[in-house]
Amino acid sequence: MIPKPVLSHINDSQARYLADLIEFLRIPSISMYSSYAGDVRKAAQWALDRAQRLGFTGALYETPGHPVVYAELCPHKDAPTLLIYGHYDVQPAEPLEKWLTPPFEPAVRDGAVYARGATDDKGQLFTYFMAIESILSAEGELPLNVKLFLEGEEELGSPNMDAFCTAHREMLKADYVAVSDGSKFEKHLPAIEYGLRGLVYMQLDVQGPACDIHSGVYGGAVANPAQALVAIIRTMRDDKGHVLIPGFYDRVRAIEPWEREQLAALPLNEESIKTLLGVDRFVPEEGFTFLESTWARPTCEINGIWGGFQGEGSKTIIPASAGAKVSMRLVPDQDPLEIMRLFEEHVRKVTPPGVTVTITAHAHSGPVIVSRQSDAILAAEKSLTYAYGRKPVFVRSGGSIGVVVTMKEQLGIEEVLLIGWGNPEDGEHSPNEHFSLDDFYRGTLAVAALMYELGERKAP
Amino acid sequence: MIPKPVLSHINDSQARYLADLIEFLRIPSISMYSSYAGDVRKAAQWALDRAQRLGFTGALYETPGHPVVYAELCPHKDAPTLLIYGHYDVQPAEPLEKWLTPPFEPAVRDGAVYARGATDDKGQLFTYFMAIESILSAEGELPLNVKLFLEGEEELGSPNMDAFCTAHREMLKADYVAVSDGSKFEKHLPAIEYGLRGLVYMQLDVQGPACDIHSGVYGGAVANPAQALVAIIRTMRDDKGHVLIPGFYDRVRAIEPWEREQLAALPLNEESIKTLLGVDRFVPEEGFTFLESTWARPTCEINGIWGGFQGEGSKTIIPASAGAKVSMRLVPDQDPLEIMRLFEEHVRKVTPPGVTVTITAHAHSGPVIVSRQSDAILAAEKSLTYAYGRKPVFVRSGGSIGVVVTMKEQLGIEEVLLIGWGNPEDGEHSPNEHFSLDDFYRGTLAVAALMYELGERKAP
Repeated sequence: MIPKPVLSHINDSQARYLADLIEFLRIPSISMYSSYAGDVRKAAQWALDRAQRLGFTGALYETPGHPVVYAELCPHKDAPTLLIYGHYDVQPAEPLEKWLTPPFEPAVRDGAVYARGATDDKGQLFTYFMAIESILSAEGELPLNVKLFLEGEEELGSPNMDAFCTAHREMLKADYVAVSDGSKFEKHLPAIEYGLRGLVYMQLDVQGPACDIHSGVYGGAVANPAQALVAIIRTMRDDKGHVLIPGFYDRVRAIEPWEREQLAALPLNEESIKTLLGVDRFVPEEGFTFLESTWARPTCEINGIWGGFQGEGSKTIIPASAGAKVSMRLVPDQDPLEIMRLFEEHVRKVTPPGVTVTITAHAHSGPVIVSRQSDAILAAEKSLTYAYGRKPVFVRSGGSIGVVVTMKEQLGIEEVLLIGWGNPEDGEHSPNEHFSLDDFYRGTLAVAALMYELGERKAP
Repeated sequence: MIPKPVLSHINDSQARYLADLIEFLRIPSISMYSSYAGDVRKAAQWALDRAQRLGFTGALYETPGHPVVYAELCPHKDAPTLLIYGHYDVQPAEPLEKWLTPPFEPAVRDGAVYARGATDDKGQLFTYFMAIESILSAEGELPLNVKLFLEGEEELGSPNMDAFCTAHREMLKADYVAVSDGSKFEKHLPAIEYGLRGLVYMQLDVQGPACDIHSGVYGGAVANPAQALVAIIRTMRDDKGHVLIPGFYDRVRAIEPWEREQLAALPLNEESIKTLLGVDRFVPEEGFTFLESTWARPTCEINGIWGGFQGEGSKTIIPASAGAKVSMRLVPDQDPLEIMRLFEEHVRKVTPPGVTVTITAHAHSGPVIVSRQSDAILAAEKSLTYAYGRKPVFVRSGGSIGVVVTMKEQLGIEEVLLIGWGNPEDGEHSPNEHFSLDDFYRGTLAVAALMYELGERKAP
């Protein structure tokens, strides 16, 4: 599947590749905090430099936010084109005190590299760079045309990707897209994702009195914004996990019997997930299993809440304001803009008197389902089986990758591959995020195999 | 009422007294933060030094928390004894960005001194020092015996005062207690308080997964502690201001018709309070007026709430934990320990599955009502009328001064005077707290007058 010299080159380059990844992970490219904008750009430049060193032509493309890295190596007239999408930005690292080693001082221990971004997404993205470098070093050319499309705002919900894809339709044109920003089903079982949930991320800011006031002197007669916030949020979800925002479920596609059967057949180890998360039970939506609830049902979650006194001891105030971040995961065929509108209408309706609420939308992306019958999927199945010695299972994901919808809809690329090398316990978005060196190696093999598999096909 | 030389001395000493108060206000004696313990002690020492310079004998008395300042000047065999209670600790100053001038760099503007503690309670307490100094300077002796009893933990709910009063019953023995830690009814209308609400201050800490986890991957199947916290708190109070904790109202004394009439007759300017607080309406408990709700009805308020992501933008997590500070104001004849127990039982009952809750009690104090027919009240009425040129009204307070209950019950002092020189708009517990120089002056006159009024009485 992979030419021997390529395999040898991959095998011989592990230590050097790891050192390079560590260099990439050292850059604190936190897209969310404006004070890190310089580091985000540094990571973009790092990736571009690397691609250019491999012979790609490309540039940083400015957006209203962080830049896009685009680079291509497309020498073949008849071969198909693979668009590789990844992101070089990372989530914030808080809570910092929970990290055993600092998030931006990568540490290798127990067969894994620990750093913010290790698995999400720098480590996984870097497997593409390694496969390309080894193929070019050993064989002199790639078996197909490759376009690299790296974003710096994925963790923000890709707010500028719609516009970017629309503006660069021709440049981004491709036959296949590969995205490795997820994980296998479990440590030794690769997976191909055919569905992602969408996301609507909102913020509520509730304003009460002009400043914090004495809760003894005024308590009982002045509206408390924290109390109002609690009242508003409590109307959004019942104790059975159902979302109560009117109209929320109107477009939700039912899970088909065949899919329920297939999800139930997956070798899910609920106990090990509970141990990993440190919880004693799951609370899936009533009437649905764990996998159905997290992959194929929409939700509404509080991501953050604040207001008033948070220090040690007691401070007797009615806070001036309170707020919350509330996000909803969407499934086909919910429409993010419609859900956003329903959310706002609902909040306006249930806001108690005496406070004012400001609603801010932070991000939105649509849910997606891709065809499970395509050339790309067949090639991915073969490549993953080669790299991991085991046939991949078909899964959905509870997460959201906004740009996948965009690439499908704006660029018209139907064959989207969602194949991750991470593990569910890698701690993406959590302290002590890490990426196993075994996956670092096998992911590279899978990428190389995939390129040769797809390269054998003619450009459609 | 006040001997002329005393009045002249007070009049002539204003600038010097203000400079001294500013020195006192400069000490950031925030009792709540352990890192400020040194400053709290510094403020105690400052007050003790001052008393000793006036001829009092006293010392700092250690407690498990911050020290008590006790000092006395009791030369008269036949004269009654006045115990002056005040506190030298202050509330935290957050939110700091809302202060026009720093909270511990006192600034004089618009006829007032601005600083944390200006009115609550350093400024009001200092009027006693000034009156005593002027009387001693002009007349050589006080008209009665005086004991100073200054606490450093009032803002914590006086956790060590029960034990201290019990241990020092003989030392603290007195005929009257004066406490000036409140305010007038309005700027030009003095008031005598005959009731205080009690306080029970609790903290809830809700623990979910071991660390923050990805809200896409797990959202919909793992209990969200912020959601659980919202569910718990929402059960505590309805939209009409009634507290829903079972048994909460069992011992609440009904407001008598004569008292409702009297409260209704007070010249309350609701519009000016709304403007002061920056709210467009009040939301009193259904069936009660603003004053009834804040003075004579119990409440339950969120003082602070937190959990998960509070930064800019969006972070897609289910938080590991969430928490809240919830306090209840109590009225006669509610029992703080019983309310604490009812609160805990209720929380245990309504906690949803999948999370664990830790309940911490921060403070508790009983509600109090004092007799309106006593020598002390008559003397205070005369003194306030003298100082402010207007007869005081009788009021209750929504706030709590735990030690008042203790002094009444442990020391057996029935004649407790709650007379404040502050104004409702002084911003106690809020940014830009201040104390008017006019009240600084008139408060001193009132104290001097009160001492001569009480001094005319024989020791009972």
